[in-house]
Amino acid sequence: MQEVAVVGVGMTPFGKFPEKGIKDLVREAVQGALRDAGIDGKLVQAAYVGNAVAGLMTGQEMIRGQVTLSAMGIQGIPIFNVESACASSSSAFHLAYTAVAGGLFDCVLVVGFEKLYDPNKRKSFQALGTAVDLERFLDYFSGVEKAIGTADRILREGSGEKRSVFMDMYAFLARRYMQRYGLTQEHFARLSVKAHKNGSLNPHAQYQKPVTLDEVLQSGDVSFPLTRMMCAPIGDGAAAAVLCSKSWTSRLQANPVWVAASVVGSGVIGTDPDDTLTRRLAPKAYETAGIAPQDIDVIEVHDATSPAEIMDLIDLDICPGPDAPKWIEEGWLEIDGKMPSNPSGGLVTKGHPIGATGCAQIYEVVRQLRGEAGPRQVQGARVGMTHNGGGILGIDAAAMALHVFKR
Amino acid sequence: MQEVAVVGVGMTPFGKFPEKGIKDLVREAVQGALRDAGIDGKLVQAAYVGNAVAGLMTGQEMIRGQVTLSAMGIQGIPIFNVESACASSSSAFHLAYTAVAGGLFDCVLVVGFEKLYDPNKRKSFQALGTAVDLERFLDYFSGVEKAIGTADRILREGSGEKRSVFMDMYAFLARRYMQRYGLTQEHFARLSVKAHKNGSLNPHAQYQKPVTLDEVLQSGDVSFPLTRMMCAPIGDGAAAAVLCSKSWTSRLQANPVWVAASVVGSGVIGTDPDDTLTRRLAPKAYETAGIAPQDIDVIEVHDATSPAEIMDLIDLDICPGPDAPKWIEEGWLEIDGKMPSNPSGGLVTKGHPIGATGCAQIYEVVRQLRGEAGPRQVQGARVGMTHNGGGILGIDAAAMALHVFKR
Repeated sequence: MQEVAVVGVGMTPFGKFPEKGIKDLVREAVQGALRDAGIDGKLVQAAYVGNAVAGLMTGQEMIRGQVTLSAMGIQGIPIFNVESACASSSSAFHLAYTAVAGGLFDCVLVVGFEKLYDPNKRKSFQALGTAVDLERFLDYFSGVEKAIGTADRILREGSGEKRSVFMDMYAFLARRYMQRYGLTQEHFARLSVKAHKNGSLNPHAQYQKPVTLDEVLQSGDVSFPLTRMMCAPIGDGAAAAVLCSKSWTSRLQANPVWVAASVVGSGVIGTDPDDTLTRRLAPKAYETAGIAPQDIDVIEVHDATSPAEIMDLIDLDICPGPDAPKWIEEGWLEIDGKMPSNPSGGLVTKGHPIGATGCAQIYEVVRQLRGEAGPRQVQGARVGMTHNGGGILGIDAAAMALHVFKR
Repeated sequence: MQEVAVVGVGMTPFGKFPEKGIKDLVREAVQGALRDAGIDGKLVQAAYVGNAVAGLMTGQEMIRGQVTLSAMGIQGIPIFNVESACASSSSAFHLAYTAVAGGLFDCVLVVGFEKLYDPNKRKSFQALGTAVDLERFLDYFSGVEKAIGTADRILREGSGEKRSVFMDMYAFLARRYMQRYGLTQEHFARLSVKAHKNGSLNPHAQYQKPVTLDEVLQSGDVSFPLTRMMCAPIGDGAAAAVLCSKSWTSRLQANPVWVAASVVGSGVIGTDPDDTLTRRLAPKAYETAGIAPQDIDVIEVHDATSPAEIMDLIDLDICPGPDAPKWIEEGWLEIDGKMPSNPSGGLVTKGHPIGATGCAQIYEVVRQLRGEAGPRQVQGARVGMTHNGGGILGIDAAAMALHVFKR
């Protein structure tokens, strides 16, 4: 396996863009990544395209990568459409990485995109609701959630039609971490305040306005302990990356960031909420990268809700569970804290156009490691990580991709 | 790159199975492939799952591989959902092949599946119609087809709502080959007769009844020169393959078939119908496999319509265009002919559950090379090929995968 570098990244702003089609989004992100790499699109030897719900939201199914890339002149090459719910473009990144690492190509493109916003919110929620095992979701969920009655409510109100089913799942898991580690709703609200502060420093973020703790707590109940400002919004966007082999990288003017680990896994149906996919995959990522969790200077985790940020950091063995309240109270996760997490604003404020999210996390970490993150720069960052989950299987994530990057 | 073998294949019968869900189809095909390989599912290290329209047809989107495989106990491993219209599972096969060839895994699973049949035929046709560039299909098509008026008719009647848009595209291309090489509607009807004869020897085929030339010609006009019996039916099905590295293969009892070439490409938007994706990719497949077209003993080509079979053989440089009428008249493409083509019955009679088709072609060629094809066995076959196209880009295929196999 040869070494692989990210030599260019690009992304669109995330937000609601009813005037932009999927070709517009892909073009903007890919042109940005190619410009950043300093290479012409004609040099790209293969493309790996992550998208989740274009078929359901726009009608364009089956050949989404070929359609969007050919419209900007990238065509003829192998193009792979990869789908894994919210982990679609990190899964695509993994396939791109392994193709270069395995010696098949020297220069490949990864792009993730999503048009998730629709004036009819129900349509977006229904599309999101397809990221579970439709036949068995309620079976699994009711098994662990019966006491609280959420599954009954979902059954009664219709899965995913009034809000994303994911919010109930996240709320259920958040309550477990609260019981275990002494976390409170206020801790999660502080994470949302941090997310909004970081988002205000990110010109690509869907929400760029700082908020107060009270504003988060009063923003409307979703499913306890979640309030509206703790949940990632619905939006559109795209992000892209160019990967090159070591020999090609040495010939480019680009500022390379090396892929130190690319680890993908899928969920396991079970009823033990503690045996998470993140917990199972993390040791493999650290071992492959040759690092300990303490070596990570900056991380982007899959905070589809604010509680998930600290839950993920615990599951990643970065934050010891009992220390979680203190870490939040003392600002360890701030950009200038001891373990800067989601400097981009994360999914909660940068936004979560699901097929684009994995690549957008990589965009942020690459820019951070290159020292180009401007007002949200984590000083001296040399090792970065991304954590991107997708879908629900049993009561776990259905898919997960962890990446470690080094300068 | 290390050598890779197909050590097991499995498939369901193809047909209309309203009583079977996607989990049933996947389980049947995968259990067959694992049994054939003589290995337990727990040894599978990664899975590559091809599907095209489960999201539109069944509502199960985003994590189709995780949902279907976990239901039969294959879980926790990396699972990649790959979509490329009718070339979905051959694209998945390519990714699986490259992962093993590149040294990432020793034992991986490929599965393709589709539930395309619906009592409301319009739903199936509309789903199929998403395999084009929805915004620009009519632009491209009308550019070359204006004289004949088909594009106007599609525009008037609604794309893909009365029949698959693909049939008009295939008819247009067939007429070009008729003009150039002296092929007639009767030649294509003979190919349909052959397909039905071969299908009658295949217990997995959707149509297993021999038909006469007159029956084909009188079966109802679709779009000249196509009649109903020259067109692949709508149906459901799944097919799977297990791939292993050379070192693992040597430890199995299985009868290996080696992957000699795995080549994937995508279409190019242009107006020259002669510059096809098949023509562009074929030389690379032969070069990689170290063979000449004449070395191929048995082939499965993407005959979504009967004319496509001979058009593909011409584009693959297997049949010289001017000789095409003679080849058909003299039975060269029969199972006992000089160049046996589609012994399975092909898409026209075996059926075409689109996400399953690429893997099902590989199933057939592997069984042929192992000498296990029973009454449809091509005697002494040692080199086999599959040709699987998907979607429409411009007036070309959007995706294509060619595979060469050797004993």
